[in-house]
Amino acid sequence: MELFENERIDELHRKGYQIIQNTKMFCFGIDAVILSAFADVRAKDQVLDMGSGNGIIPLMIHAKYEPSNIIGLEIQEANVRMARRSILLNNLESDIQMMHGDIKEAAGLLPLSSFDVVTCNPPYMDSGSGLHNELSAKTIARHEVLCSLEDVITSASRLTRVGGRFYLVHRPHRLVQIISLLRQYNMEPKRLRMVHPTTDAEATMVLIESVRGGKPFLKVEKPLIVYEEGTQYTEEVRKLYYE
Amino acid sequence: MELFENERIDELHRKGYQIIQNTKMFCFGIDAVILSAFADVRAKDQVLDMGSGNGIIPLMIHAKYEPSNIIGLEIQEANVRMARRSILLNNLESDIQMMHGDIKEAAGLLPLSSFDVVTCNPPYMDSGSGLHNELSAKTIARHEVLCSLEDVITSASRLTRVGGRFYLVHRPHRLVQIISLLRQYNMEPKRLRMVHPTTDAEATMVLIESVRGGKPFLKVEKPLIVYEEGTQYTEEVRKLYYE
Repeated sequence: MELFENERIDELHRKGYQIIQNTKMFCFGIDAVILSAFADVRAKDQVLDMGSGNGIIPLMIHAKYEPSNIIGLEIQEANVRMARRSILLNNLESDIQMMHGDIKEAAGLLPLSSFDVVTCNPPYMDSGSGLHNELSAKTIARHEVLCSLEDVITSASRLTRVGGRFYLVHRPHRLVQIISLLRQYNMEPKRLRMVHPTTDAEATMVLIESVRGGKPFLKVEKPLIVYEEGTQYTEEVRKLYYE
Repeated sequence: MELFENERIDELHRKGYQIIQNTKMFCFGIDAVILSAFADVRAKDQVLDMGSGNGIIPLMIHAKYEPSNIIGLEIQEANVRMARRSILLNNLESDIQMMHGDIKEAAGLLPLSSFDVVTCNPPYMDSGSGLHNELSAKTIARHEVLCSLEDVITSASRLTRVGGRFYLVHRPHRLVQIISLLRQYNMEPKRLRMVHPTTDAEATMVLIESVRGGKPFLKVEKPLIVYEEGTQYTEEVRKLYYE
């Protein structure tokens, strides 16, 4: 596979899968890794990843669960092209499709109430926070300039089948808003996991599974702790990355 | 202090405070201990504890923060009488008042928008769950037969001053409903802590601080782990009980 400027190939440490990343664009982080692992996907599921970036979540989910029908929706055309090359690199073109499009318009582009699983690792910061005069690739990935949290949840609700599951990773400080919006759009939060850098630190991420039309009953799983003894990954996180 | 049938005196392990408990009624558990420690109370605060039972939370909060104005509201008259005897036992009658009354009617009994701090360790189980044909003292303490979660949150919202804080301990499986109701009654969740029996177990309790009219921004604190190495309290929990 020929690489363009600023591109490199990274290993997913799972079935030999690889991904092309561009160091000037958004490269995947631990949030994509833990969201893929938190998602409960079966091989027969129709899966949609909204805001796929370089395609990391479709690739990770395929590596882990092998569903034969994954769509990755991404608004930045450069990302879509690069993700398609990663899919070819892994010979997954029959199972993973990258689609160029906007999360806000997703319900007009894709069949309504049809997905068993929808995943999203959206921009965390609301469009007011931080500086982003220039709409760079990284700004779009990090800030809600092109789509808000409500856009994400509306589209997830319209595209997930009744009983289907929506997996979201986000920042804990927005959890109240997330829960309110999920409820407003009939996505019942059923499973929640807090992610803490260490056992003594505040949560820095939260993972949420919601079910369209689900019955109210939330399970709060054991905390996911990222580091132990300073800067070493815990055994659980090492396994998410390397097994 | 004379004790009646089934009564005993327990130590609070804090400033020599003691409490009278009746083994046939509801005796305090770890939830009261952790809620008292989670609450952030200053000496000058007007404090209300709703559903005080035998008065454990007013006593623990006094032992810890020494506010000179605590009201404990309790619906079961036998509890009110017993709590008053505990208050006398500790010579705290000038600082803690027990009031006989219903949480549902609290806003008619007490001055509106006046409390700096409201605490509540309510019944956890909705009135449909479990068997409770007989309205025993324990049933009233555990099930929402006399007041619902919405009653608790409505009263908290009406009695807390703007900017005042409401502390609730509850079961995680109801967190979504709790957050929705808090928001509905203008109590913004600001601080949340999950309580797990061990680092490897689901959360069994959740502590929530909400602020009347607060700005949305939730802090999720480090998890509170109760046991380590089998059945031994962690250092943090030992300190909550014994220091």
